[in-house]
Amino acid sequence: MREVFQQELAEVQNGLVEIAELVQVAIEQATHAFAESDVALAERVIADDQHIDERAIQLDELAIEILARQAPVARDLRIVVSALRISASLERMGDIAAHIAQLARFRFPQQVGPRDLREVFGEMGRNDVEIARQLVKLLDTEDNELAEDIKRRDDIVDGLHKSIFDALLGNGTDVNHPTEVVDATLASRYHERFADHAVSIAKKIQYLSSGEWLQQKEAATPNA
Amino acid sequence: MREVFQQELAEVQNGLVEIAELVQVAIEQATHAFAESDVALAERVIADDQHIDERAIQLDELAIEILARQAPVARDLRIVVSALRISASLERMGDIAAHIAQLARFRFPQQVGPRDLREVFGEMGRNDVEIARQLVKLLDTEDNELAEDIKRRDDIVDGLHKSIFDALLGNGTDVNHPTEVVDATLASRYHERFADHAVSIAKKIQYLSSGEWLQQKEAATPNA
Repeated sequence: MREVFQQELAEVQNGLVEIAELVQVAIEQATHAFAESDVALAERVIADDQHIDERAIQLDELAIEILARQAPVARDLRIVVSALRISASLERMGDIAAHIAQLARFRFPQQVGPRDLREVFGEMGRNDVEIARQLVKLLDTEDNELAEDIKRRDDIVDGLHKSIFDALLGNGTDVNHPTEVVDATLASRYHERFADHAVSIAKKIQYLSSGEWLQQKEAATPNA
Repeated sequence: MREVFQQELAEVQNGLVEIAELVQVAIEQATHAFAESDVALAERVIADDQHIDERAIQLDELAIEILARQAPVARDLRIVVSALRISASLERMGDIAAHIAQLARFRFPQQVGPRDLREVFGEMGRNDVEIARQLVKLLDTEDNELAEDIKRRDDIVDGLHKSIFDALLGNGTDVNHPTEVVDATLASRYHERFADHAVSIAKKIQYLSSGEWLQQKEAATPNA
């Protein structure tokens, strides 16, 4: 029974890694579409978001089946409940990537956002992409250093978010057209929320890894 | 065992109703603070959000205890898992109310948002408040008509959200100052997301009520 549970838990973990990989592709393509006004790429991100949603639902069904079949308790139960929450956060990160792509699509053929802020958005986008990459590895390896690095990068994203608002609200900017202000406000908020969700996942994994998820995995694969 | 489960389920349901009541107060006060630039009220909403977070954590702990003690299966299991998700949505609605309050506080002593759009925001706020009230009743009674009404009001909020963006992006508006555009963009997005979360909860309750949550409750209290 215990061994079956370990296998099912590994299946859940692999499912989370796979969804995180789809999210990583989504944010890579969304930030590229945003920077380059690539409307075809933006449309692909928007269409592909459905796959992320479907995979998240499948993973939730698997987690609910495990709860029904195995009736886990204590830490085991918390691992499965956390997987449900992590899947919800990943699904939301996919939505946000699609929102960023939508901004690029709506404004096409014009470039989205103010020219003055393009560099800052590029920096935010690179950090979101790097956070998504680290999240894939974190879900796979539970390496605490990756969780800490995601938090550090989130601080950077928060700082960039603040600098965009300072630029929009300050007087020394060329950003005057309301369309640019609206787009920059939403884009900055989306980039910031994307990183927030990653931090929320990283904290859950740190909590679980400090307990038994990691230890169970090592016990199940002693040669790894 | 079955009877204990029914009691615990009722406890979860009551917990959700209580959190929804806190969310209702939060959005009432937040939209009032937003409309009237009432900074003291805004600060109360921001401070009180912690209570909502704490209550949501307590409810999650209760749901996890029920999963551990009762090991529910089938529809019973889905009810408890749905409660976890509903609590997460309510917690997020509390956050959004606090965000609306923060906009009022940041801009104080000036009024937040463009004067031209104040009436539209008032209308959005009234709909969000009404949605929150209906959500309390829906969680208590599982009355399908309330769920449908929440969806209808969400459509109204979506229309108002669109009209605010049209006004911000159009040329025939007096909204020129970037601060007003930023505030109106964020405020409109928050109002819209608040209603979205309510719809997501309403759909979960409709799904469960069409199955067994409602029937179980009737079976447990045959005289009600």
